[in-house]
Amino acid sequence: MAIPLSADYASMLDAQDRLAHFRERFVVPDPELIYMDGNSLGRLPKATQTYARELIETQWGTRLIRGWNEGWFTAPERIGAKIARLIGAQPDEVIVADSTSVNLFKLVVAALRAQRGRTRLVTDDLNFPSDLYVLQGAIELLEKGHRLDIISSPDGIHGPAAEIQASLDEQVALLTLSHTVFKSGYLYDMAELTRAAHSVGSLVLWDLSHSVGAVPVDLNAAQVDLAIGCTYKYLNGGPGAPAFLYIRRELQERLGNPISGWMGQRDLFNFALDYKPAMGLRQFLTGTPPILSLSLIEPGVDVLLEAGLDALRAKSEQQSEYLIQLWEAVLKPEGFVLNSPRDVRKRGSHISLGHQEGLRIDMALINDMQVLPDFRAPDNIRLGLAPLYTSFSDIHTTVTRLHQVVADKLYEQYPHEVPIVT
Amino acid sequence: MAIPLSADYASMLDAQDRLAHFRERFVVPDPELIYMDGNSLGRLPKATQTYARELIETQWGTRLIRGWNEGWFTAPERIGAKIARLIGAQPDEVIVADSTSVNLFKLVVAALRAQRGRTRLVTDDLNFPSDLYVLQGAIELLEKGHRLDIISSPDGIHGPAAEIQASLDEQVALLTLSHTVFKSGYLYDMAELTRAAHSVGSLVLWDLSHSVGAVPVDLNAAQVDLAIGCTYKYLNGGPGAPAFLYIRRELQERLGNPISGWMGQRDLFNFALDYKPAMGLRQFLTGTPPILSLSLIEPGVDVLLEAGLDALRAKSEQQSEYLIQLWEAVLKPEGFVLNSPRDVRKRGSHISLGHQEGLRIDMALINDMQVLPDFRAPDNIRLGLAPLYTSFSDIHTTVTRLHQVVADKLYEQYPHEVPIVT
Repeated sequence: MAIPLSADYASMLDAQDRLAHFRERFVVPDPELIYMDGNSLGRLPKATQTYARELIETQWGTRLIRGWNEGWFTAPERIGAKIARLIGAQPDEVIVADSTSVNLFKLVVAALRAQRGRTRLVTDDLNFPSDLYVLQGAIELLEKGHRLDIISSPDGIHGPAAEIQASLDEQVALLTLSHTVFKSGYLYDMAELTRAAHSVGSLVLWDLSHSVGAVPVDLNAAQVDLAIGCTYKYLNGGPGAPAFLYIRRELQERLGNPISGWMGQRDLFNFALDYKPAMGLRQFLTGTPPILSLSLIEPGVDVLLEAGLDALRAKSEQQSEYLIQLWEAVLKPEGFVLNSPRDVRKRGSHISLGHQEGLRIDMALINDMQVLPDFRAPDNIRLGLAPLYTSFSDIHTTVTRLHQVVADKLYEQYPHEVPIVT
Repeated sequence: MAIPLSADYASMLDAQDRLAHFRERFVVPDPELIYMDGNSLGRLPKATQTYARELIETQWGTRLIRGWNEGWFTAPERIGAKIARLIGAQPDEVIVADSTSVNLFKLVVAALRAQRGRTRLVTDDLNFPSDLYVLQGAIELLEKGHRLDIISSPDGIHGPAAEIQASLDEQVALLTLSHTVFKSGYLYDMAELTRAAHSVGSLVLWDLSHSVGAVPVDLNAAQVDLAIGCTYKYLNGGPGAPAFLYIRRELQERLGNPISGWMGQRDLFNFALDYKPAMGLRQFLTGTPPILSLSLIEPGVDVLLEAGLDALRAKSEQQSEYLIQLWEAVLKPEGFVLNSPRDVRKRGSHISLGHQEGLRIDMALINDMQVLPDFRAPDNIRLGLAPLYTSFSDIHTTVTRLHQVVADKLYEQYPHEVPIVT
């Protein structure tokens, strides 16, 4: 299954790409810069740039407090309903609020309180560390003798799906996993794991942060109970944009938000002294949402809906296969190892390449080679494929420059320290 | 102490106002519209409008992921340190994060866990309802038999300071109050109540949302333990902009954030599986902050620092006295009652006027009279005085139009329903 290695071949793939024109929907101020980090922070959509002026100058500057009645107040549900279409959920099952970690806290605490008598939480060691920290904090807070079982991946790349299934029993309150794993890009079989958890009476919570917008997700089909996800990666919502949460409709009345605030109050402008939760998902709001960051999620979601998730996934699969084939031919001989699943059905839309000089290679790539990947300790250069704007030529150039950095030892001028963020 | 009632007199006061020129720092697109709701949503600073373009188009659009190392990552502390100067705190005692309600949850839970054995929480019925909801939720979650004592105001206007002091005993874990009360504008004596709480070993948490930027606050002088506050009122941070929290330096190591997330992790990019809190206040961060809403707080804070809180308070006092004198002469005869303290030392920077037709008057004012106040059930028209841009003429015009709405019964065309937000 060898592919031609030339740049011309990459250009030909771009010419055949029916989604290629979506790149024009994004601000690309420096065409020389290859951006391979859309899985960490998505690019700025042109529609967002335009909408930002209207939002700040007209909605805030001119309409002032009236903005609340003219779209701000309902933005959490309105944008949530659009995200629902990307993840196979009903419009009233998704709402935008707070950060991914705060939403996880709310849902985990709610789930554990609804599952009294069950003491186990199950996850894996590939889960995003913030999720593990939130679980640890929630358990410590509840003081009910919960135990967090972190199942180890056999190889640090593939999720321990079989081991998780073997570990499930009637004591499990909640199984929670990242659908697409942040480091390796491993993609869990959502339906299979959800079914297994349900068979012992456990609830299931999926973190969709590295899936939403790049991998088709069907929460309803898999009968998923709970989900969270972030909007600043493939949804292109802007740095740190608020996160979303999903609760299966039938569960919504059974769960209560532990961080009960006025935005989740029924009839909030009555200013009653006692908390009475709003109907449906709105009770999972807490404080006043950051309207600028929240509103600017919407144009990016609209672009995704227009392109369609199935077409995006097809392109993403083609691109990650292409990247892996180039790795095999060009980078593997230079000491790069593939730290992502080889099977396309088992990976999301980013690829990790390990190298013993990974960190220094990453720094050379950023500073000298006009390529922006990201880096995940200890040695992973993580390459994000954002099918809305990543081109095959981007991938080809990235591989060529990675090769050059190693072949010419361009990394040797860099220290062995870790920068704060890469 | 009668004052002249003419518009000319208001113009003369404006001519004498040494802060008047600060109004030019704000976007005022419609000079005919009188904005009396800066205590709910502050106006858009021109510097923010400019900075928004740089933030979105350059920092996000061009610098992309590199933005994290170029100011985003440290924004919570950087902006927190500036807010610290407005509230008499040290630079490392304030950080910006999440919403006011989420911050309250974090601090209340942390305080109750540090105060084991004490079961009482004391507050009043003038506190912002969201604060009460958070307290209720935290108590229910901890299941330690805590009791929330909501001390009643004698008249719905003045805080029950004496009753609170009488109620304090060795069982009190935490006293928490709004420094300036959202409905009446009553202003607590922070030092006195803090001293009283400390004398029985209680911690104290002040909600500064309606004070910060309008009322001088000296947390250090009063030896306050904990505080929270919002940035979208007098700080002009933008709708729903993230909130701040304060923890007295000596307490920082004793308290733990119950919503432990990666932004509060020591060495977060090591991606360790176990949570290990960061040093100092950074552990009270949780998830990735909404950078656009967060960053846009800063220019507004800079304007406040330039104007100076003492000068702003002096103007605010002069303006609220002026408004009350106009009320007495013009509005009281039409059935308006003063629902704010008459003593200037006991009120913040907004004035509530009650009227049995309050809601309909509010609607007429907004829809027909080009005045934007806000409304707080059941009958309060709340008039915010934002000394950076509210003019004496604004106040005069507001009173004149309020009078006209009632004298000419212009409110009669409106229904008796409550709109979602006013």
